[in-house]
Amino acid sequence: MTDTHHAPAYDPDNIFAKILRGQIPAERVYEDADTLAFMDVMPQGDGHTLVIPKAPARGLLDADPDSLAAVARTVQRVARAVKTAFAAEGLTVFQYNEPAGGQTVFHLHVHIVPRFEGVPLQRHTGGMADKAVLAEHAARIRAALAAG
Amino acid sequence: MTDTHHAPAYDPDNIFAKILRGQIPAERVYEDADTLAFMDVMPQGDGHTLVIPKAPARGLLDADPDSLAAVARTVQRVARAVKTAFAAEGLTVFQYNEPAGGQTVFHLHVHIVPRFEGVPLQRHTGGMADKAVLAEHAARIRAALAAG
Repeated sequence: MTDTHHAPAYDPDNIFAKILRGQIPAERVYEDADTLAFMDVMPQGDGHTLVIPKAPARGLLDADPDSLAAVARTVQRVARAVKTAFAAEGLTVFQYNEPAGGQTVFHLHVHIVPRFEGVPLQRHTGGMADKAVLAEHAARIRAALAAG
Repeated sequence: MTDTHHAPAYDPDNIFAKILRGQIPAERVYEDADTLAFMDVMPQGDGHTLVIPKAPARGLLDADPDSLAAVARTVQRVARAVKTAFAAEGLTVFQYNEPAGGQTVFHLHVHIVPRFEGVPLQRHTGGMADKAVLAEHAARIRAALAAG
C-alpha cells in the first residue's frame, strides 16, 4: 500500500512547521532529535500539550515509521510529566487525520489532555489561552520532566 | 520517574486479556508477535477498530516502550487499511487512560474510527453492534490489509 492515500501533499508553511523552524513562538516543554512537545494555544483543558515529529508528515498515514515510533516514545514521556504536573486523574490522547477526522493543522500531532472526574473536555473554541498561563503550565511540565 | 504513577495494578482478567487468551471471541483483523487489532463491539462509527499490545499494560503510562512502539506501527498499518476499506475521508485516533480519561477496559488500547464530513462520532452507548455486520466490516479491513 502506498503512503499517499490521495491525501494532499505536505505543506511546509503550516504553523507547526513554522514553530519547528522557530519562525513563530511556542511554549516548548520537550525536544529531542526527532520530536518536539509544546502547549496547545487553544487548550481543551489545563495542560493540553501537543507532540509532533520533526520530520514532515501530514498525518498518521504518511509518517515515516521510525518518526512515528519516536513520537510514541515522546508521547509517553510527556504524558507522564503532564499527569504529574497537573495531578491529573486521567489522560485523554487523540490524533486527528484530515478535516473529516478533526484535523486543523496539517502536520502530524498528538494531543495529550489532563482529565479529572466529572470535568468534560472543553471544545476547541478558537479562543487563545492567556500567554502567561500557558507559560506557567509549560514550566510545570518542564519541571516534572526534569524530576522524572 | 516510575511507571506506576499510583495507578492500580494490571488486572489479567480484563476483557482484552481474555480476547488475547482466546477465552472470548473477537472479530480480529490483524495480529503480529506484539500486537492484535480487532473490531470494537460498541463502535462509534462503522469500521471502529482497536489496536492492543500483547504485553500487559494498563495504559499509556505503564507500557513497555518497545511494546508501545509496536502498537504505533500497527496503528499506522491498520489505520491505512481501515481508511481504504471504508473509503473514509478522515480518521480519528484516540487513547484513554483511567476512568477520568474515558477508559473503560484496563488494557492499553488505541481506537481508530473512520470519519466523514458532517458525521459526528457516535457515542459509546453500551449497545452492542450486530455480529454479522462486525464480521463483514472485519473482512473488509482484512482484505485491505492483504491488498496493501
